[in-house]
Amino acid sequence: MEYPVRRSDNTSWQQHIQDRETRAALKSQHPRILWFTGLSGAGKTTIASHVDMLLHVSGKHTFILDGDNLRHGLNQDLGFSVADRVENIRRTAHVAKLMSDAGLIVLVCLISPYRLDRRMARDLMEPGEFIEIFVDTPLDICAKRDPKGLYKKAYAGEISNFTGVGDTYEPPVSPELHLNTVGTTPIDLAEQIVAHLELT
Amino acid sequence: MEYPVRRSDNTSWQQHIQDRETRAALKSQHPRILWFTGLSGAGKTTIASHVDMLLHVSGKHTFILDGDNLRHGLNQDLGFSVADRVENIRRTAHVAKLMSDAGLIVLVCLISPYRLDRRMARDLMEPGEFIEIFVDTPLDICAKRDPKGLYKKAYAGEISNFTGVGDTYEPPVSPELHLNTVGTTPIDLAEQIVAHLELT
Repeated sequence: MEYPVRRSDNTSWQQHIQDRETRAALKSQHPRILWFTGLSGAGKTTIASHVDMLLHVSGKHTFILDGDNLRHGLNQDLGFSVADRVENIRRTAHVAKLMSDAGLIVLVCLISPYRLDRRMARDLMEPGEFIEIFVDTPLDICAKRDPKGLYKKAYAGEISNFTGVGDTYEPPVSPELHLNTVGTTPIDLAEQIVAHLELT
Repeated sequence: MEYPVRRSDNTSWQQHIQDRETRAALKSQHPRILWFTGLSGAGKTTIASHVDMLLHVSGKHTFILDGDNLRHGLNQDLGFSVADRVENIRRTAHVAKLMSDAGLIVLVCLISPYRLDRRMARDLMEPGEFIEIFVDTPLDICAKRDPKGLYKKAYAGEISNFTGVGDTYEPPVSPELHLNTVGTTPIDLAEQIVAHLELT
């Protein structure tokens, strides 16, 4: 192992601090935050997993921050009150920002129902870095799919404040991408997203 | 751009989920957490910056999580009470774990004065993943350096619970690396760390 930037004399060592640009350059990519928002069961994680794989096979360095998974670790102290949901999104946005600073393309899957919180996340990022992807699946379809059985519980009154049932989802006004998921497939939607990334 | 894993027929798309191994393999490295613990002013960030640069020039994908910086973002809601310091370390450990899952080598610079908290961080990680680095600089030298003017304030009673003055620092019992910083240079210490990484 060689250290090209080292001089023979310790005192002439030049301290180089790595920044976002050097970390991204090593990965030959532009760091981005792909922020998937939409109802529970809309398909956020499924589509994001396909995007992740498409990017991986083209040599891109990625990571998925999934709201459900984070609740088992970083956000395990948070519940579903309004304050806790805001904090959940705040922390996730900061972690996404740190990962972007590390040069990664970060895929965030989070219902993130309120415009204000998504705005907060966007405002943390550089211009062009935040790509809001609205995974638009009608409520009745999400409720019919009900992959985690949560709609059933929400309609039975066992879960309060459930987005779309007891609580509001505020659709994005001008997302970078608006995906209508009905009549298409996750892989086709994933390819749309990758195509968008190549153009921007 | 080609998608080698895609089949011509959408329905035969095989969903491959990326994991820690695939993300690390793309980077040709073993993810690690280098956890720098020691008094304020001990040299944690300085040494870590040198390690970061040495790893970078050898093509490694790294990131520095610095306790001071995190307090401006993810941990900006936390103070310096015992509970808040514990939470500060808990969150930092979880972010380090996520970054390691992303395949990165993560350098954490955090006083992290209590054994229990460092243990908690270690227990989050895979065997061999957590490398505790005790940056051992005597209190009187740290207080004399006082790069941020904090020791002066602590001795004047303007800061309470300051590690080493009003609060305890519990030295690691069996850290992976114990660095005595007196009579050496940050770059020499950084090279020791890199040599250790190559052996393990």
